[in-house]
Amino acid sequence: MAAENARIVLSRSPADRLSAEDFTLETGPVESPGPGEVLVRNVLLSIDPAARAWMQGRTYRDQVRPGDLMPGFTLAEVVGSRDERLPVGTIVLGDGGWQEYAVRPGAELRPIRVRGPLTHHLSTLGITGLTAWVGLHRVGHPTPGETLVVSAAAGATGNVVGQLARAAGLRVVGIAGSAEKLAWLTGELGFDAAVSHRSPTFREELRAACPDGVDLYFDNVGGPLLDPMITAMNLHGRIVCCGAISQYDTTAPGPGPRLVPGLLITKRLRMEGFLVTEHDDVWEDAVDEMAGLIADGRLRVVEQVDEGLAAAPDALVGLLAGHNVGKQLVRIGPDPA
Amino acid sequence: MAAENARIVLSRSPADRLSAEDFTLETGPVESPGPGEVLVRNVLLSIDPAARAWMQGRTYRDQVRPGDLMPGFTLAEVVGSRDERLPVGTIVLGDGGWQEYAVRPGAELRPIRVRGPLTHHLSTLGITGLTAWVGLHRVGHPTPGETLVVSAAAGATGNVVGQLARAAGLRVVGIAGSAEKLAWLTGELGFDAAVSHRSPTFREELRAACPDGVDLYFDNVGGPLLDPMITAMNLHGRIVCCGAISQYDTTAPGPGPRLVPGLLITKRLRMEGFLVTEHDDVWEDAVDEMAGLIADGRLRVVEQVDEGLAAAPDALVGLLAGHNVGKQLVRIGPDPA
Repeated sequence: MAAENARIVLSRSPADRLSAEDFTLETGPVESPGPGEVLVRNVLLSIDPAARAWMQGRTYRDQVRPGDLMPGFTLAEVVGSRDERLPVGTIVLGDGGWQEYAVRPGAELRPIRVRGPLTHHLSTLGITGLTAWVGLHRVGHPTPGETLVVSAAAGATGNVVGQLARAAGLRVVGIAGSAEKLAWLTGELGFDAAVSHRSPTFREELRAACPDGVDLYFDNVGGPLLDPMITAMNLHGRIVCCGAISQYDTTAPGPGPRLVPGLLITKRLRMEGFLVTEHDDVWEDAVDEMAGLIADGRLRVVEQVDEGLAAAPDALVGLLAGHNVGKQLVRIGPDPA
Repeated sequence: MAAENARIVLSRSPADRLSAEDFTLETGPVESPGPGEVLVRNVLLSIDPAARAWMQGRTYRDQVRPGDLMPGFTLAEVVGSRDERLPVGTIVLGDGGWQEYAVRPGAELRPIRVRGPLTHHLSTLGITGLTAWVGLHRVGHPTPGETLVVSAAAGATGNVVGQLARAAGLRVVGIAGSAEKLAWLTGELGFDAAVSHRSPTFREELRAACPDGVDLYFDNVGGPLLDPMITAMNLHGRIVCCGAISQYDTTAPGPGPRLVPGLLITKRLRMEGFLVTEHDDVWEDAVDEMAGLIADGRLRVVEQVDEGLAAAPDALVGLLAGHNVGKQLVRIGPDPA
């Protein structure tokens, strides 16, 4: 076992847009697990836009402040254990942080049954895919034949939402920010249409892409798209509030949606936020279902793996700038033997 | 039967705040019902803040434009019928408009079983009370012990919401705009606390009035109260979007809530609009329940009846300015003999 633990801390509050210089790579000792705790070796790190929101203030977790280890979801191998339910060698998911080794309470880690490549368990078969599944099915309540629009459609959650909705018999329209992404969504992932939120004729293009209106808007971005989307919603439409990426990478979030609550009333709309970790009961069934769709070729796993813990800051900065498609991961160490 | 029909039309679009001069009282012939239609004599007219929103654009009904008869809910007596289900003498609810006589399709009128004073059937036992009941129970899903906050609490819908929530075992806090209304809510209607939205220390007073946070916000006003209310909400709180009075009487609605969707996600909140007329299935049961609460003294009917059709414009202007408590009605004609 290594005696040293490389770790990345947030070294200063971002001035406005996050920069790789806001982080520092440090080295410290590898700690020992106490009673009920385990020592894990992080293998893969999930890079999530929410990490930027954590720096803005308290969310569903405490604010990340200068000097703090960067938190982050990891897939890890148990290498030392004082929790008998998690013997050495177990593969677990949990908040291992941006570091090589972590000591965590065993109760906060989820042992997983590996199905296929480990990377899948941090992307489509991990929290990200589960977020798509829970938001779509548990919050969105889709019906075959309805039209779903998903923003950040080429992103980690968005691409899974769109593919799952297609598999559920919905018309699926993606919103993304580049011509390449639009072409990829319709050409490679089978979306029925895709529209650029940067287009000056966005509203008209959206209308053309949704001839029967919008029943379900899976919102990953918040911000200025909300008003045009609310305008496009059908009566009794549902807006699944999953993320607000457009508002994370700034110290000055934009104005709120002017059509809230007016059009929510007029159109009898529902907007609802959720947190995937509150839906643990569906985890195994949803993963099984998605693994089946992957095996059938109806769900493509889209992921990008950057190499080495030191790549994490640039990976997050690039993610916030919209550079990636699919799930952004960082490999911290080799797969277990 | 009178040969003439007095009616009030919107004569010009309101410049900003509505004025009684925006209306004209006209006289026209009493029309005759065609097949399936009935002629009704309007007895009582419901004055609703939404009438101002109808002038702003299309809502759940067509925009009201200059030259149009003012629409409005009435309690009326059938005086001529070509719909055998509605014989002469039947008491009905429907969109009779701001006029003495109306010809309406029978299918659009609801015959009612009179329980107590007729006025009650346009206030607590009418659409207004039903709106409170449906929003509270069908959209809000209250649980005894929870804390409910209702805005425009002294208004037609708000006072019923608060009283029903009290009867359902919730802690009830009202928001209103004058010291008299606050004192009346706690002193006369049994609200647990009341807070003025005009207070410079509104947020602190709200917090003090809701020591366990807010589980349910019944929103009648929209506008600048939404952000402080979202801030005060507990995890998994529900916001019942019933009205947006603060945004109706203007040509320049204010900015939207900046905390949407960010805090909806973080706190897993739900915001939902509804339209009472889509919940017809509960009408009889809900009216029976409320009539029982009235008989028990647990639900006070609060209404103000102005006399004569010509009083309607001033009644609506006063309502939008927050002058009334409870339900504002206008008597167009005498009760049926």
